Amino acid sequence: MFILEGIKSLLEFVHSKYEIQSIYYLPQYQSLLPKLGPNIELFEINNAELSKISTLQAPPGVLALLKIPKPSINNHNILRDTFSIALDGVQDPGNLGTIIRTADWFGFKNVICSENTVEVFNPKTVQATMGSLARVNVFYVNLAEFLKEATIPVYAAMLSGQSLFEVKWEKEGILVLGNEGNGISDQVADSVANAITIPRIGGAESLNVSISGAIICAEISRNLNK
Amino acid sequence: MFILEGIKSLLEFVHSKYEIQSIYYLPQYQSLLPKLGPNIELFEINNAELSKISTLQAPPGVLALLKIPKPSINNHNILRDTFSIALDGVQDPGNLGTIIRTADWFGFKNVICSENTVEVFNPKTVQATMGSLARVNVFYVNLAEFLKEATIPVYAAMLSGQSLFEVKWEKEGILVLGNEGNGISDQVADSVANAITIPRIGGAESLNVSISGAIICAEISRNLNK
Repeated sequence: MFILEGIKSLLEFVHSKYEIQSIYYLPQYQSLLPKLGPNIELFEINNAELSKISTLQAPPGVLALLKIPKPSINNHNILRDTFSIALDGVQDPGNLGTIIRTADWFGFKNVICSENTVEVFNPKTVQATMGSLARVNVFYVNLAEFLKEATIPVYAAMLSGQSLFEVKWEKEGILVLGNEGNGISDQVADSVANAITIPRIGGAESLNVSISGAIICAEISRNLNK
Repeated sequence: MFILEGIKSLLEFVHSKYEIQSIYYLPQYQSLLPKLGPNIELFEINNAELSKISTLQAPPGVLALLKIPKPSINNHNILRDTFSIALDGVQDPGNLGTIIRTADWFGFKNVICSENTVEVFNPKTVQATMGSLARVNVFYVNLAEFLKEATIPVYAAMLSGQSLFEVKWEKEGILVLGNEGNGISDQVADSVANAITIPRIGGAESLNVSISGAIICAEISRNLNK
């Protein structure tokens, strides 16, 4: 199971591939709950009880338990005719959540994580997705092996490479983003055909991984939808 | 005073406009300290002492106290011939720090905060800037009044407006980013001549403010430097 908090996020998971198991709610949310579907265990609780089970400093009044799915990629065809994001050892839960939210904004449906990427059902990650987790598929794979078998172009955000503003994008591909401190591992780098860099004008040594990923996703989206 | 942790970040503040008052360090960092300049109080401490004063779960071994400057914008001329970022009530320390880091990457030297924006010398903000705070000027002003007097174009990231990919950028301007939940306030919106939106393809309701800011900054930087 994983924890999801807030009625707004929870509504995103209704009619999704996720199964809501139970909901713990403050009395004032009762009228909203029938919308959420049948076969959900409901528990009315008070503020004191909620603050004991919540993972947040200011609990939003509704806490749900959802079943953790175990999706796997059976073949590479689901990655055709679109862009997907691959993460090589991203460690910060907030970064992973923000990347999923950004992918969802641009309509990218798949995020493929290396096995040493932070757990997606971590409450901080779930919270940072702001409900986008309901729409984006997140897979965990041996990323180096997975990319070796890729049949579409593999791009990666790196500190040196072709300028983002000069890339000739294909209409399908995988964008790899690396670990916060160490970037992309050597094994994964072997499968990267296109290293891309965001031109730096000022003094910062690097960009946050969710920031560089978003800047490149915007550029890919512009190209796919023009 | 404000707290800065980590030798890498601290080195960015040497030869900056900031004054380092004192440094608390583990013995293994002693050889690096003479580089940091004269007139700094030095205190060798042990791990137990460091963990008491550190704001981080894994203290990086060097903690410094720096004097908080009180910069003010005396006239609008420092904003000419470049782009600046204005923040209208950004609340999350990590978002503010990430925005400063991103501004520094693109060479934008000024971040102008409304008075209700989170404190920049908050340890979480300082940490998230990854040293970029040493190079970016951060001002606190009455933002609505400030923008009324602006002599350069004012742009803002909004959920509706002109597509980012169709904007004809000027060579100078101010980009306004709003509060995480409520966006840009009515008083500030009155001074925004150009509302800009990042085209949405998928299902997410919004983007994180540091993400939308970065995507727009990249586009401005491309235009300024082409």
